[in-house]
Amino acid sequence: MGGTQITIPNPPPLPSHLPDNVLDLAVQIERKKLPDHVRESLRAFQRAGCYIAASMIFLRDNVLLQDELQLSHIKPRLLGHWGTCPGLILVWSHLNVLIRNHNLDMIYVIGPGHGAPAALASLWLEGSLERFYPGEYDRNATGLRNLITRFSVPGGFPSHINAETPGSIHEGGELGYALAVSFGAVMDNPDLIVTCVVGDGEAETGPTATAWHAIKYLDPKESGAVIPILHVNGFKISERTIFGCMDDKEIACLFSGYGYQVRIVEDLENIDDDLQSSLEWAVAEIKKIQKAAREDKPIVKPRWPMIVLRTPKGWTGPKKVEGQIIEGSFHSHQVPLPKAGSDEKQLQALDRWLSSYKISELLDGEGKPTEAISRGLPEPEKRLGQLKTTYDPYTPLKMIDWKQFGVEKGIDESCMKTAGKFLDKLFQENPKTLRLFSPDELESNKLNAILDHTQRDFQWDEYSRAHGGRVIEVLSEHNCQGFMQGYTLTGRTALFPSYESFLGIVHTMMVQYSKFVKIAREVPWRGDLASINYIETSTWARQEHNGFSHQNPSFIGAVLNLKAEAARVYLPPDANCFLSTVHHVMKSKNKTNLIIGSKQPTAVYLSPAEAAEHCRQGASIWHFASSPDPNSAGESVQDPDVVLVGIGVEVTFEVIKAAELLRSIAPALKIRVVNVTDLMILIEESKHPHALAKAKFIEMFTADRPVLFNYHGYPTELQGLLFGREKAERMDVEGYQEEGSTTTPFDMMLRNRCFISLLMGKYSKDSIGVAIPTPERSHRQL
Amino acid sequence: MGGTQITIPNPPPLPSHLPDNVLDLAVQIERKKLPDHVRESLRAFQRAGCYIAASMIFLRDNVLLQDELQLSHIKPRLLGHWGTCPGLILVWSHLNVLIRNHNLDMIYVIGPGHGAPAALASLWLEGSLERFYPGEYDRNATGLRNLITRFSVPGGFPSHINAETPGSIHEGGELGYALAVSFGAVMDNPDLIVTCVVGDGEAETGPTATAWHAIKYLDPKESGAVIPILHVNGFKISERTIFGCMDDKEIACLFSGYGYQVRIVEDLENIDDDLQSSLEWAVAEIKKIQKAAREDKPIVKPRWPMIVLRTPKGWTGPKKVEGQIIEGSFHSHQVPLPKAGSDEKQLQALDRWLSSYKISELLDGEGKPTEAISRGLPEPEKRLGQLKTTYDPYTPLKMIDWKQFGVEKGIDESCMKTAGKFLDKLFQENPKTLRLFSPDELESNKLNAILDHTQRDFQWDEYSRAHGGRVIEVLSEHNCQGFMQGYTLTGRTALFPSYESFLGIVHTMMVQYSKFVKIAREVPWRGDLASINYIETSTWARQEHNGFSHQNPSFIGAVLNLKAEAARVYLPPDANCFLSTVHHVMKSKNKTNLIIGSKQPTAVYLSPAEAAEHCRQGASIWHFASSPDPNSAGESVQDPDVVLVGIGVEVTFEVIKAAELLRSIAPALKIRVVNVTDLMILIEESKHPHALAKAKFIEMFTADRPVLFNYHGYPTELQGLLFGREKAERMDVEGYQEEGSTTTPFDMMLRNRCFISLLMGKYSKDSIGVAIPTPERSHRQL
Repeated sequence: MGGTQITIPNPPPLPSHLPDNVLDLAVQIERKKLPDHVRESLRAFQRAGCYIAASMIFLRDNVLLQDELQLSHIKPRLLGHWGTCPGLILVWSHLNVLIRNHNLDMIYVIGPGHGAPAALASLWLEGSLERFYPGEYDRNATGLRNLITRFSVPGGFPSHINAETPGSIHEGGELGYALAVSFGAVMDNPDLIVTCVVGDGEAETGPTATAWHAIKYLDPKESGAVIPILHVNGFKISERTIFGCMDDKEIACLFSGYGYQVRIVEDLENIDDDLQSSLEWAVAEIKKIQKAAREDKPIVKPRWPMIVLRTPKGWTGPKKVEGQIIEGSFHSHQVPLPKAGSDEKQLQALDRWLSSYKISELLDGEGKPTEAISRGLPEPEKRLGQLKTTYDPYTPLKMIDWKQFGVEKGIDESCMKTAGKFLDKLFQENPKTLRLFSPDELESNKLNAILDHTQRDFQWDEYSRAHGGRVIEVLSEHNCQGFMQGYTLTGRTALFPSYESFLGIVHTMMVQYSKFVKIAREVPWRGDLASINYIETSTWARQEHNGFSHQNPSFIGAVLNLKAEAARVYLPPDANCFLSTVHHVMKSKNKTNLIIGSKQPTAVYLSPAEAAEHCRQGASIWHFASSPDPNSAGESVQDPDVVLVGIGVEVTFEVIKAAELLRSIAPALKIRVVNVTDLMILIEESKHPHALAKAKFIEMFTADRPVLFNYHGYPTELQGLLFGREKAERMDVEGYQEEGSTTTPFDMMLRNRCFISLLMGKYSKDSIGVAIPTPERSHRQL
Repeated sequence: MGGTQITIPNPPPLPSHLPDNVLDLAVQIERKKLPDHVRESLRAFQRAGCYIAASMIFLRDNVLLQDELQLSHIKPRLLGHWGTCPGLILVWSHLNVLIRNHNLDMIYVIGPGHGAPAALASLWLEGSLERFYPGEYDRNATGLRNLITRFSVPGGFPSHINAETPGSIHEGGELGYALAVSFGAVMDNPDLIVTCVVGDGEAETGPTATAWHAIKYLDPKESGAVIPILHVNGFKISERTIFGCMDDKEIACLFSGYGYQVRIVEDLENIDDDLQSSLEWAVAEIKKIQKAAREDKPIVKPRWPMIVLRTPKGWTGPKKVEGQIIEGSFHSHQVPLPKAGSDEKQLQALDRWLSSYKISELLDGEGKPTEAISRGLPEPEKRLGQLKTTYDPYTPLKMIDWKQFGVEKGIDESCMKTAGKFLDKLFQENPKTLRLFSPDELESNKLNAILDHTQRDFQWDEYSRAHGGRVIEVLSEHNCQGFMQGYTLTGRTALFPSYESFLGIVHTMMVQYSKFVKIAREVPWRGDLASINYIETSTWARQEHNGFSHQNPSFIGAVLNLKAEAARVYLPPDANCFLSTVHHVMKSKNKTNLIIGSKQPTAVYLSPAEAAEHCRQGASIWHFASSPDPNSAGESVQDPDVVLVGIGVEVTFEVIKAAELLRSIAPALKIRVVNVTDLMILIEESKHPHALAKAKFIEMFTADRPVLFNYHGYPTELQGLLFGREKAERMDVEGYQEEGSTTTPFDMMLRNRCFISLLMGKYSKDSIGVAIPTPERSHRQL
């Protein structure tokens, strides 16, 4: 009994019952024999790369094996993932040749991000670490020693690819997103090719399973291409993979069905010839498709190339240890010789393994890679670690004056319709650096003015196969998010509008991205990026037609938990504030911006100029809705009995109406109405750059009067922000509390206790000094 | 310009470049002509169903068209989704025949959950509404009137399928999960077939794209089967679908690659013959596969059947309105005649449309469905709305005494190893009603004792094709969650252990499920369900090897935002408490349980008996770690100067060590140490059933002394819970604050300010009355 019992390394999949002729779907190519000097250079890179990657996991000393290997040379704790490394290094070496042969701009997106040793070893070999970390990781014995001994040790490179890794545009953590990010990166980058390795573990994820469809949204005239390499090494951490158990017929069928031409590379004996010829084939197919499109004779449904690479997990590592198969099994996933630091037998096995690469032949006396390696490298600026697109690509948008799209104070207007017109113009001004990704909700969210001068870009659909279409609508939030990430990380700006309730689908994906950007800000050699920008509408407060399943404001919390430097949540109360906020975020940098608004026509409280000022401050006293100051025209009372605060469109409406009604039935009560549009101003001073200073907070919310917050999100979330503010016990928070159905907007407010009469009922004579009579009118009659 | 311009209804996909012979992959069957009386009955059901579904969207009066249709008969607000309804009703009618023919136990899972009118119309016709809502929706004119007029109106059925819908086991909201839920439902239900309609919109989601692989985890000996029907009607809300733009060759290829036999049903002229013959074929194929397995001659990689149903969106609805194509285009998605209540022309179009079904032929004088319809229905208990498995299926687990697995107080032990041994035994005792789903992390999470007496169940892998294997490891959290939902909703119990950081992948999916269960609790005719149970381990505090990307405790917040009746979050401080908690949740009902623990060996503070008591209370004063009461042996001080609170394994360790160090360097300081294992006890009284009463809270945390919480999750989250508790301003909260890397556990605590000396430094002489000298030793030396 027990876990998976593997009796042979790299066991072949059970054969399927598919007919033999489907194998014809797998592309056969004429395999060219590489010239000796190329093959030698490739092998030298691969051997050196594998040696360094393996050493990074094990060695804290004697990193070139110049002395006899001893237990004391082994790191006290062995950390790192070996299994995927040989395959990643193999691909890296071949991409070098490909880049040289075609003078390509190429990015290498590595799905198995725990294969950091492979990337770092390759980056050291090609001198990219030397460039970005001079004096630390130079191409000499000291630099190599630093790389190997500091890996996965505090202060050294971490075990997963992240923003500290030159050339990377993808956090190496949560699996599933490499492919969509790659497609996003090549959009509007016609000369870029991204090679994306997807591990067969990652390939089991839903996000990856649908990201294969992304070719259908790629216009070869305006965009570059992705070479996906599905790396089938057969195992996850401790179990075989789905794809490792699919035979060639199943794999050829599946990916042909997605729309690819599939090339299966599995000839281990001649892997260099096989892989390089296959990559050459892929580039030729890409050029063919691009040429046709760029000559305005586009191929309908072009079958883009992809590669399936079958190599053993932990290839070239130890074959067997203590009777257990290592190479070609899940035992090689992390540390193949876990007792190398304490067990002499394992130490010897490590010595044999590392010695097999003959590193002394590959580095010169100073520890610098020999000519056999360096002759295979592309020009520095084309190397995978040094393409500018990966580290300093930002092109700010050409902005326009938003006030010209402002609407008249006093009317009812939809925030989305107003923003749509502004964005329509912004798209016209930025035809190559701005895109919108949406899960088929643009019309429904009433942002359709965007389609006035651009179109959807869905290449498989003859009715929306628009050249230059700025809009992609695919019913996969994961694809939308992945495209946005890739597009943004390569220097452009994107927008992701969504139903409020479904943006949480990409909660953790957004967090992963934000982790990458947080570290990128700490890396001195990385430039700015546009922010990622979300618009949430069709909120719970107006989901009367779709009901309970469409009511979920939890994405606010996802953004709130990010670092304060990046986290921005805006709840503009009307169309002009919304417009001002959209304008602001589209030119902001390095943030995660969430803007929440209504698609329904709602009251416009502020003129464009007033909206600009309100948004600049993040919150303000709304004198027009408060009890007037008898001594100062246009101002409201200086010393309110109670402060009512609205945060969000519909709940602010309730606050204003509650104030109106209170004033009519209890005129003695002095009421102040405050609107908060920038949620971050509420956080305790010093905990966020937007946080109101204590004095300012007291000025707005008083020092001791009861404050009632009517909040769009979950009450406990707002309570968490207010904690630590002056006399929190005088504050009450109402908000969405997971009550809903297909019902009226009125009833939604009522069920979640955000409704006017419930707000009014919060206060007794004891708490505010004024008795409030029972209201006779509901605000619907006001 | 503008959106998608559709010039013909139901436009055919552009042809692919796949070779013609792949079309042979699409299964050809001998199509049987249905006997007239069967076809007539089918058509009667379909016509009546479509009539009622359409009327539900439009009519508030004159529901049988007995009078001339007038504007006043139209609902003031038109809500509902027509487009998917005809296809769903078509399938329903055919499943009735299939159930009768084979005496099947069948559940119908409807992915397009906004097609509630289709389900409700069918449920009324078959008498299932009458059974569960007697007197309200009876099969007579009054019942029908109620159904039609109250739909999507407060108090009536909502616009999306939910727990109020008889026969449903799936919330009709967020798309992507229908298929995985269906597979979960048939596991260990050998006689059950779930027919699952997946819309072509839903099919674009990642979760659905990988859920097709679920057949690979289905053992036909022990489990039932799913008949997936991909319903390709070509359009989402306002855009064509990916699958609508794939030709038959692409579709046949794709799903053959997944491992299915694909039957494409698209002969609209003879749709009844075509669909029924295809369903008969599917059942025959299923029986063939099951028979072989049950006779212990299992077919290797059986190719399970699936159906692709191509019908026009909004079929049988209006063809064209105001020059716009409706039937066969996205215009039929929701309300095809949006102005029917105000525009005479649209009203006439509605009249023509509704009249086309000739409802008067299908209902008798009392409004009861005629014999043509009723003769096609299965026996009541087999009807799709009345199968007991869908509404009252719960089989509680046979529980075992957990204390026999308790470990010795004082040693270091892994919570996961301890729980693994208990669960191993629990699986042995419950070989057919308990399953574990994991994204390939069982070994890594050190729960592998579970595999001592059971195995993984991965049918495509010859090495883990175990009969009766209780463990499914697939690297898709969405599949794990979907399987768990389906398994639980059909009466069994499941467990989903995960890396802490990646459980948030299913955040919104879990919320959708919880919405279903919330409503299910309010529906009198639904029985109990097991809770859904999550174990989070490999937490941020011990991700020193994987680093920043593996650090994300946000799933706590997802559970906290659920309704208090269901939300349960436990952070047991040691192995015995963990064990007690696992035991508790496995027998609990109707909850969403999240338990967080460590896989590393950590201190065992409490004996099994003490752990039981601590968990029963949810929190307690840990006298052994506090300053002793000089007057009472074994007790701690009654009047502490400060209260230190640990919530979570590693942060509690820091608290205990801080207390220890403080006591040694500032002996005058009276310290109380509290551990909270049930997070919910902290919430303000009356807001959660577990919340501590005010007096009890003060007894534990004092009325006014400084309280320092060292919390495993985000500080603002805990602050939100504590808000409203006595004198919140005396409370400080530390916790994970999104700082990390590949670094030591020590450094992780330091970076997130949860470390002992930082905890100690919180207090000045002013705040606690005792000066604390600078510590000379770190607790690592203690």
